Amino acid sequence: MTAVYRSELTPLAFLERSSIVWPHKTAVISDGRTISYADMAAHATRLGHALTASGVGSGDRVAYLCPNTPEMLIAHFGVPLVQAVLVAINTRLSPEEIRVILDHSGATMLVGDSALLASLAPVIRDLETVTEIVSIDETGTDPGYPTTPYADLLARGSDAPLPWTVDDEERTISINYTSGTTGQPKGVMYTHRGAYLNALGEIIHSHHSLDSVYLWTLPMFHCNGWCTTWGVTAIGGTHVCLRQVDAAEIWALIDSEGVTHFNAAPTVLIGLANAPEAHRFPQPVTITTAGAPPSPTIIQAMEDLGATIVHVYGLTETYGPHTVCELQPGFAEFDAAERASFLARQGVSYITADPTRVVDDDMVDVDKDAETLGEVVMRGNNVMKGYFASEEATRDAFRGGEFHSGDIAVWHPDNYIDLRDRSKDIVISGGENISTIEVERAIVSHPSVLECAVIATPHEKWGERPKAFVVLKEGQHASGSEIVDHVRGLLAHFKAPDTVEVVLELPKTSTGKIQKYVLRDKEWAGHDRRVN
Amino acid sequence: MTAVYRSELTPLAFLERSSIVWPHKTAVISDGRTISYADMAAHATRLGHALTASGVGSGDRVAYLCPNTPEMLIAHFGVPLVQAVLVAINTRLSPEEIRVILDHSGATMLVGDSALLASLAPVIRDLETVTEIVSIDETGTDPGYPTTPYADLLARGSDAPLPWTVDDEERTISINYTSGTTGQPKGVMYTHRGAYLNALGEIIHSHHSLDSVYLWTLPMFHCNGWCTTWGVTAIGGTHVCLRQVDAAEIWALIDSEGVTHFNAAPTVLIGLANAPEAHRFPQPVTITTAGAPPSPTIIQAMEDLGATIVHVYGLTETYGPHTVCELQPGFAEFDAAERASFLARQGVSYITADPTRVVDDDMVDVDKDAETLGEVVMRGNNVMKGYFASEEATRDAFRGGEFHSGDIAVWHPDNYIDLRDRSKDIVISGGENISTIEVERAIVSHPSVLECAVIATPHEKWGERPKAFVVLKEGQHASGSEIVDHVRGLLAHFKAPDTVEVVLELPKTSTGKIQKYVLRDKEWAGHDRRVN
Repeated sequence: MTAVYRSELTPLAFLERSSIVWPHKTAVISDGRTISYADMAAHATRLGHALTASGVGSGDRVAYLCPNTPEMLIAHFGVPLVQAVLVAINTRLSPEEIRVILDHSGATMLVGDSALLASLAPVIRDLETVTEIVSIDETGTDPGYPTTPYADLLARGSDAPLPWTVDDEERTISINYTSGTTGQPKGVMYTHRGAYLNALGEIIHSHHSLDSVYLWTLPMFHCNGWCTTWGVTAIGGTHVCLRQVDAAEIWALIDSEGVTHFNAAPTVLIGLANAPEAHRFPQPVTITTAGAPPSPTIIQAMEDLGATIVHVYGLTETYGPHTVCELQPGFAEFDAAERASFLARQGVSYITADPTRVVDDDMVDVDKDAETLGEVVMRGNNVMKGYFASEEATRDAFRGGEFHSGDIAVWHPDNYIDLRDRSKDIVISGGENISTIEVERAIVSHPSVLECAVIATPHEKWGERPKAFVVLKEGQHASGSEIVDHVRGLLAHFKAPDTVEVVLELPKTSTGKIQKYVLRDKEWAGHDRRVN
Repeated sequence: MTAVYRSELTPLAFLERSSIVWPHKTAVISDGRTISYADMAAHATRLGHALTASGVGSGDRVAYLCPNTPEMLIAHFGVPLVQAVLVAINTRLSPEEIRVILDHSGATMLVGDSALLASLAPVIRDLETVTEIVSIDETGTDPGYPTTPYADLLARGSDAPLPWTVDDEERTISINYTSGTTGQPKGVMYTHRGAYLNALGEIIHSHHSLDSVYLWTLPMFHCNGWCTTWGVTAIGGTHVCLRQVDAAEIWALIDSEGVTHFNAAPTVLIGLANAPEAHRFPQPVTITTAGAPPSPTIIQAMEDLGATIVHVYGLTETYGPHTVCELQPGFAEFDAAERASFLARQGVSYITADPTRVVDDDMVDVDKDAETLGEVVMRGNNVMKGYFASEEATRDAFRGGEFHSGDIAVWHPDNYIDLRDRSKDIVISGGENISTIEVERAIVSHPSVLECAVIATPHEKWGERPKAFVVLKEGQHASGSEIVDHVRGLLAHFKAPDTVEVVLELPKTSTGKIQKYVLRDKEWAGHDRRVN
């Protein structure tokens, strides 16, 4: 028996508690259907038994391919309840990418939305480990191959209570595959302990309370919804499900359900602010944003609509958010532009995370001068356990005793970090660092440009020089030199690209990330390294 | 080296973080003196070094005898920073009681307020383990025997950074001696892990935020201030020190410092509500109350002044609070009496605690019928590690795999616990249980009564009958039969006391707990047992 004074930390305890304290409170709203906390716990319990009856054992992986539905949410409890591991797969991936993840994770069961399962038909016969596919049919779509109806799966379960505990808090609770711009996908392992602590961090930093009505704009397959699946459940808030990010529907739900909180990437906020339905929030709303540095413009736009913005930053490898742009005394007296500029920084570590550092290649802290670039590294309870079945990748990511984000930032004198580049996409020209994000921002501000990518290319004299690949808007024209002149009008001249190549499209992953390595492959052919 | 993904949980990390994020924000206010978070961390660091230089090693106990001063607060970080153990002693104890605690804890150093040290003079020569006494002189009092000035202690230290970490999260961070109404004091051991988790629980349940201005009405020597020493520091709030509980001063500080939160026992709230300075709170104030079941009367009085009441319950053995009376949907629509009556219950477990149970003598859950009495038992991360150097007492307290509170409660159908008696102070009359708390509540609702205590007295026919000891308000009069009639108007007749004895004062411990055993001693003279 374990010590009286120790329980293994697990987010399972959160659903147990909320079902004891608020059995009749609405836990989930989805398309007008409501689920109480008692029913949510009962559903998770039945699912756990059903998985066991289906041969899913401790440590086995159960894959889910679902939009933000009640079933996807409840799987965050029902799967770990029998000490199994949840693998929530990005629904935007290609069938082939999904096949690779299913095989790599070794999942034996796949539970999916029938419409999404239908698109998997071409790869179904190639799956190596999946032995049963369960279909949740909400749209009347036939997957086109034999599946078990979700109701039949649940019918194998029972309502006998299961303990909401885990035998070891460092047991893996979920594996989240990164979409990675290069190479094979990597399975990021979360522990019960890490999920528990990050969920408390989300409650504190996003200011959740019993009155939270949380709208699921963020996919649950992204870092288990930044652990908000567990956090909002812990605080006894109400989850409002959303199958697809649609500005009109989001605005409608904000009004009809009294939404108080949501998490969203800046691109989603841009869509909301520019939707015809945009209006002042009818109740106080807290928006936690991450995924890319939000521009001061969008921060101010959302504040003008009455929202409180919380800016957080992290990676799949850090359970989602790892830093938060904490406010300072006097912040309320800043003018709108100062507030937005302050809030655009990534900030400082979560209350449950170890201090975040910005380091040079020797793992030494860079100067806190808001200028020196370094890599963001993290450690502690908010960092993944490692990559599943990828010891070498884990060792590499953890070299020097810290997780290497690959993200490039400056460190302000006040200890706040400020991202300058994702994935080391930096150009070092004559010893001067050039942020490709900065150059890209300048280029897309040209009225004819739709999107672009800037990479480093080798250069005899300067070592490296930036080169831009530009896609123009339909029906628009701009020469390379026009674009270079435009950048020179905005940035130091040395930052302007030497070459601009107008292309019809940029190479992208299935999630829309630009694959700069494809561009670099071409430009660096014949070179041993890709930095000069 | 430890894993990249694991840091040992410790509240030390909270001060590190706040000193990084808000170095210039006011951490502490005391008599007009303000201390920033950077200074607080520097002070704790210097103290840590000074303790090491004074021969205090890992695991050694350092005793403090101080009112709620900045030094007492900072010791909560400086002492564990060098893996030593803080023993904060109740300043209201007698010199002899303090001597017993010092010897039992084996503390080698005692740091004390010079005025409090002066009162220790009679026992100083008898101390078995203390080799150095450090004096903090804020009142110009000479202890009357040789001590080291606090400044001299700090001068032995240095400003070299120390890691804000612990080697094992289950290491003891503090020992809190219970004031117990009988027998020898017991040293309750807290761990870094438990303190960390409870501190997060306090933040969530008392609704603390960066804007918290927390007034120290609760002694820091009580359960390390219910872990609020660590919690308010974690959230970056401001601590407002208070040397003595004085209603006039509390009201003055609420106004002058913009106090938003304080913790206090119901007796303190009664004093505040009846003080001539009482007025509507000038800003929203959250009062977290515990220590005895608050009467609906005082809850309503504080709500009428504009406060939000959070009712929590726990013991020294549970890091202070362990349960909270969580609100339910619709609570805001309750009328004032319903709200107060609801809030008077002890409620449900903290978000960081395992479910609290009410059990019979065989450790079986009692019926949730709001009537059956049972003992409150707890387990999990919010329960002490054990009693220091008292294995037998620990084994007894943990029998059956749960911590035995000794408190008697009923369990409501909605899973909320509701205390009926502390320490089994129950009257069994003709086979019917009578809760002395219930009877006491009825008596104090009489307009002439200041306070009272009800105990069981032996009775020929019924086995036991309740007897009341009553203190009247100044200038008020009420006969015993008047009071009995008043109770009969509120409760079943058999619950009314047979006898009412009007007394000038009730016997109390140094912390203000009524010593019912003193009353019982008299009433049960000549009997072998104290239950009939």
